[in-house]
Amino acid sequence: MVVDCLEYSNPSRERFVEWREGGVGCVHVTVAVWETARETLSVLGRWNDLFAENGDLVALATSAQDIRDIVASGRTAVMFGFQNTAPFEDDIRLVRVFHDLGVRIVQLTYNTQNSIAAGCWEDDDAGLSTHVGRQFVRELNEVGMLIDLSHCSERTCLDTIAESSVPVAVTHANPLEFVGSEVELGRRPKSSEVLEQLTARGGVVGLSPYVRMLKNGIRTTEQEFVDMISWTVDRFGVEHVAMGTDFYTGYGVEAVKWWRMGRWGRESPVPIDESAPVVEWPAWFQSPTAFPTLMDSMRRAGFTDHDLGLVMGGNWLRLFDEIFDRPSA
Amino acid sequence: MVVDCLEYSNPSRERFVEWREGGVGCVHVTVAVWETARETLSVLGRWNDLFAENGDLVALATSAQDIRDIVASGRTAVMFGFQNTAPFEDDIRLVRVFHDLGVRIVQLTYNTQNSIAAGCWEDDDAGLSTHVGRQFVRELNEVGMLIDLSHCSERTCLDTIAESSVPVAVTHANPLEFVGSEVELGRRPKSSEVLEQLTARGGVVGLSPYVRMLKNGIRTTEQEFVDMISWTVDRFGVEHVAMGTDFYTGYGVEAVKWWRMGRWGRESPVPIDESAPVVEWPAWFQSPTAFPTLMDSMRRAGFTDHDLGLVMGGNWLRLFDEIFDRPSA
Repeated sequence: MVVDCLEYSNPSRERFVEWREGGVGCVHVTVAVWETARETLSVLGRWNDLFAENGDLVALATSAQDIRDIVASGRTAVMFGFQNTAPFEDDIRLVRVFHDLGVRIVQLTYNTQNSIAAGCWEDDDAGLSTHVGRQFVRELNEVGMLIDLSHCSERTCLDTIAESSVPVAVTHANPLEFVGSEVELGRRPKSSEVLEQLTARGGVVGLSPYVRMLKNGIRTTEQEFVDMISWTVDRFGVEHVAMGTDFYTGYGVEAVKWWRMGRWGRESPVPIDESAPVVEWPAWFQSPTAFPTLMDSMRRAGFTDHDLGLVMGGNWLRLFDEIFDRPSA
Repeated sequence: MVVDCLEYSNPSRERFVEWREGGVGCVHVTVAVWETARETLSVLGRWNDLFAENGDLVALATSAQDIRDIVASGRTAVMFGFQNTAPFEDDIRLVRVFHDLGVRIVQLTYNTQNSIAAGCWEDDDAGLSTHVGRQFVRELNEVGMLIDLSHCSERTCLDTIAESSVPVAVTHANPLEFVGSEVELGRRPKSSEVLEQLTARGGVVGLSPYVRMLKNGIRTTEQEFVDMISWTVDRFGVEHVAMGTDFYTGYGVEAVKWWRMGRWGRESPVPIDESAPVVEWPAWFQSPTAFPTLMDSMRRAGFTDHDLGLVMGGNWLRLFDEIFDRPSA
């Protein structure tokens, strides 16, 4: 079963059909990045409508067992996640409220700093904050939500891995040592120190064919992507490497501005070329329908069925079992 | 004219009568610390009622000229301020919206870190944040709001003083070099480096008889407080030292919990003794009615009428003229 542990497409039946065609059993979708609590409720409301209208294709999962059941019914499981803690609005009790609404994965911050943590775009990186950050990590642990460090800073990653009582995730980022810091979004890939600490404590990293995080950008071949998977598996262990494509489509430039600067900026820290396409994907990964071909390439590269199962979904399921299905949560 | 550039009492007619008795011409009052935008609107609504019910004693000021006019009418001018940027909810355009509602003084953060800046309670101090912080400082400058650094970290102070195109304030904090870091709230006093940079660029620091920031705590005498004023004037210049008492009264322990941890914490970083009084003030400063006696002591200590006028209110008025009444604002 393929588990893609981050996609952020504008949701529609077209996307859900692609998931079925690609044999995708579970997708972690982003329901908030800069949205307030109230705005996030409306996003969840929209998803409720989508589930009602597309019940033949998708259903909400809030546990690993849900995912297995939904896949057994021939559909794709959708797991809700935040790419920022903005919807909590600095209210620690909203962690459980959004858990009650089905949200299971929470990135501490998105690129910039907030009350909880520093993001990867900060020049001065104070990591997890002394009081708010540490109390929120504890709360997320206790409530049973998976902490995501993808857009967080180096120190936030290291601090959180050390602070969390359970394994954490990098749902969508590539290894810095492999791709180099010259990729377009050079602050996003994760250092080997972070990946070593993360995986040593049971965490999982999801790899992405997002061209702005690939060594050769849009020219990266499928073989080079498979090479990155193999390299990461060899370096950090086959039980800790998985998929998090960061795939998105269906947006105009306004969405890109929203992600880049929410409402906090009048100028985007990363230049936005309004004449260029919002996003481009490699020829061999135009959508999640490409997973079966990718898996064939991985088999040819020597991946056994067992290892392919872990990387394509088994590792995420193991982590979800551990985080979401604990008796205390 | 006395300008007290921070009080945070639970507002009531009793307080307004004290202001008149103490000859207080203007008070910068706190209308938000952890409040959301919506909650802050209700606080402003409550103040509208207070102004309507106590129009013989108080009126809202949004400029230095307003203050002069209100004082000329025999009343006390109230100036609205935030002790945190929480009400902006990371929306840069809310800066001007709250300016439209009369808010004129904005502290970047309250003790802890937020998206804009680090507070004085953070162990790791990244200062003003790279993107959000710098864009908000520029916006506050352009809209014409005075930036307050009282509860901010050392680096936030230094970064903001350097970044701001106009002078900034420490509305309520004592000099670290004079009081020492052994005071109860040892992270609140300001270093001499901060005060040197602040005052070199035209900023003003407001001194406070809050016992948790005084060298000898509750036992501090009025003479020792006057000594601190004299020391600060000698060290940083009489045009840059003023009053910001931090006076508050009329609250129970729930208010203290709110200030200490808003909604972000389940544990207060600073222990709260629920059996002790919420706050105690020195015998010689039981309320703002004590200003005339304090001024007599300052005269005896050698303050000329000119210098007394600057320290007691003239310096704040000069800064308010510069920040609030600029043509561009």
